[in-house]
Amino acid sequence: MKSMVKIGFIGLGRRGISVLRQNFIDMKDVEIVAICDQSVARMEEACNFICEKGRPTPMMTTNYRDIIQHPSIDAVIIMIGWKNRPRIAMESMRAGKYTAIEVGCADTLQECYDLVSTYEETGIPVMMLENCCYGRREMMVLNMVKQGLFGEIVHCTGGYHHYLNEVELFLNIDKDEIPHYRLAEYRDKNCDNYPTHELGPISKVLSINRGNRFVSLTSFGSKHIGIQDFAKRHFGEDSKYAKIDYQQSDIVNTHLRCANGETVMITLDTTLPRAYYSRNFSVRGTKGMSSEERRVVYCEGMQEEIENNETEMFERYDHPLHREYAAQGVKEGHGGMDWLVCRAFIEAVKNGTNTPIDAYDTATWLAIGVLSAQSIQGGSVTVEFPDFTNGKWQNREPFVNSKYCLDAIIENDPTPLF
Amino acid sequence: MKSMVKIGFIGLGRRGISVLRQNFIDMKDVEIVAICDQSVARMEEACNFICEKGRPTPMMTTNYRDIIQHPSIDAVIIMIGWKNRPRIAMESMRAGKYTAIEVGCADTLQECYDLVSTYEETGIPVMMLENCCYGRREMMVLNMVKQGLFGEIVHCTGGYHHYLNEVELFLNIDKDEIPHYRLAEYRDKNCDNYPTHELGPISKVLSINRGNRFVSLTSFGSKHIGIQDFAKRHFGEDSKYAKIDYQQSDIVNTHLRCANGETVMITLDTTLPRAYYSRNFSVRGTKGMSSEERRVVYCEGMQEEIENNETEMFERYDHPLHREYAAQGVKEGHGGMDWLVCRAFIEAVKNGTNTPIDAYDTATWLAIGVLSAQSIQGGSVTVEFPDFTNGKWQNREPFVNSKYCLDAIIENDPTPLF
Repeated sequence: MKSMVKIGFIGLGRRGISVLRQNFIDMKDVEIVAICDQSVARMEEACNFICEKGRPTPMMTTNYRDIIQHPSIDAVIIMIGWKNRPRIAMESMRAGKYTAIEVGCADTLQECYDLVSTYEETGIPVMMLENCCYGRREMMVLNMVKQGLFGEIVHCTGGYHHYLNEVELFLNIDKDEIPHYRLAEYRDKNCDNYPTHELGPISKVLSINRGNRFVSLTSFGSKHIGIQDFAKRHFGEDSKYAKIDYQQSDIVNTHLRCANGETVMITLDTTLPRAYYSRNFSVRGTKGMSSEERRVVYCEGMQEEIENNETEMFERYDHPLHREYAAQGVKEGHGGMDWLVCRAFIEAVKNGTNTPIDAYDTATWLAIGVLSAQSIQGGSVTVEFPDFTNGKWQNREPFVNSKYCLDAIIENDPTPLF
Repeated sequence: MKSMVKIGFIGLGRRGISVLRQNFIDMKDVEIVAICDQSVARMEEACNFICEKGRPTPMMTTNYRDIIQHPSIDAVIIMIGWKNRPRIAMESMRAGKYTAIEVGCADTLQECYDLVSTYEETGIPVMMLENCCYGRREMMVLNMVKQGLFGEIVHCTGGYHHYLNEVELFLNIDKDEIPHYRLAEYRDKNCDNYPTHELGPISKVLSINRGNRFVSLTSFGSKHIGIQDFAKRHFGEDSKYAKIDYQQSDIVNTHLRCANGETVMITLDTTLPRAYYSRNFSVRGTKGMSSEERRVVYCEGMQEEIENNETEMFERYDHPLHREYAAQGVKEGHGGMDWLVCRAFIEAVKNGTNTPIDAYDTATWLAIGVLSAQSIQGGSVTVEFPDFTNGKWQNREPFVNSKYCLDAIIENDPTPLF
């Protein structure tokens, strides 16, 4: 077991800087050996706050290979834009570095298959840092599901319901005329480009790749007018941004079916005005339900009109990880889940184990964008979901080698709900 | 214009009794001339409370044709179970009686086409009493949509999210061993059998059959285990109810596409334990959103984290009908909407006009069950949606001949939201 984990950090955009600054920099068992970005200014900004924390000055490079080939780096965190992430991740794994990538989607299924091959050939873990898996609500529900309190699971929902036109896609457009890299994705593609909030947590509720798997996917896209309408109103009808017919449907609903019969519905909802308050995470079973929208956990026998009882539920069913972190004081970044997902990765590096979100999970989630695009292109046809485990899903054991594990039954309050 | 509307009432089950007792019986311009049910006991119960209100004793009959052929009856209210409703409605229309039917679905598309033919041949209106069209929230949102405050509409949602196993399907099972008629539907069919909460209100938001129409439908069904699991746990593994493999999926999500490009998602969710608090009514447009789940109406420019602002929104955008009824004191039955939908029907009879929910609406909504069954049976294939207006939808004007109209722009607070 390592006492210190030496990391290299590739990609210092808004998310990269934020993850570095609000998480890794405070980890006493992590040394930030090297940072990489194409912008020297961003690297200098990162360098400043790293040094202000009293840490050694990291090596700075515009060439990510300097990080991947660095002899003393144990683990590489890849926070660049969506394109190239799988490719760079595979290079990192082949160089023997534990590899973490930010949330996003692949361009092709080939990348996903190659990522899995790389893992199987090298034995080096790769983990998508899907922070919602470590959300307090998500972990409480996972806890209750694994204890059988929801009975047999039937259906789950979740989605990314965040209006991005102003806060991301066209952020800084007046300042430096360079739209966010995601705008090109919205211009050229039509798919669910951001499914893992909540497909990540749902995958763990449903034991995907460990006793279950996704077998098919069907996506429905709405009209695609939100971005262009925004651009007309904000930049003028004659602006270059207003003249583009952005391909991305404003609302995409994606249905997945599982080998064990469960169904999932995931929604992308990012280009029409909306309040931002929920990922619409819900789990439905024969004995109970949870729904984020009304902050309710309901089990048969409760009053029908109940809502907003999450607080009492957290009291009883909080995941031990969250109890521990509440006791220590919740870390910044999305309510503690950023801290926890980063710790989950670091602990795996320290202990030399697999990561709780592993290569098969990562490939599965990276594939959703491609599959949903295929479905939509074919008029909402149902597409087969690849089995990235090549049959192993039927027999893979729950990963229990860590308090950050997302598969195990956690002993909690044993008294029944009534 | 009539001063008194003489009605005949067919069907005195729980819903029928409730609608009669909490609505029609208090209408000073309505005379309940005749009632019909196969149960003499139920008719006597109804007769009692009618007389207790000081009203003349109605004629009682076990033969619905006595009502349909009754020379002085103006309008017939049909509250029997789902089957036979369209057939009896057509008989009533051919007898020259304005006809109202409860919420539900048809068995065949033929019934829906025949209902429309009957209307076109006789000129006699038929109206599904879809009370949610007159819900306070639904009418406020309709009001805001028609004023253009949501911009161009993109997507709507809604659903029937009510756990029925105990409160309906197996109600009274211990007492008299006769399950609710709906249980047979759940046993034998798999479809969205109850779509009009909220497809009714959504149809009016989207001007369906008056400038727009549904063009296709695709339904996704989940596992179907909820009823059988309930039966096992409540009646024992060896009970007759526990041995049935009920065909109805626990969760059905149905996607509809409109001629003008809008999409709709309707959910049926009635056989897994859940709290009952919402019909998940939401409307999304280029300028704003409404969502029942978080009681929010959001327009671009508001704070991102806003929720629970419905009360202020009602202040500004309450539909005049609801302002009027709040002033008069809200009537019983689902928060006033039962009263309003019944008044909408009666006013049409009095004034000799079409009904605000008309034959084309009724046929469209009755068809959803059949179409969703076809889709599910075909593995979630997309099915074409019939055009019951036979092309007239493109040119039909909004129905504005009534304060109960659901098509018109209502002048309200003209000052902008900010």
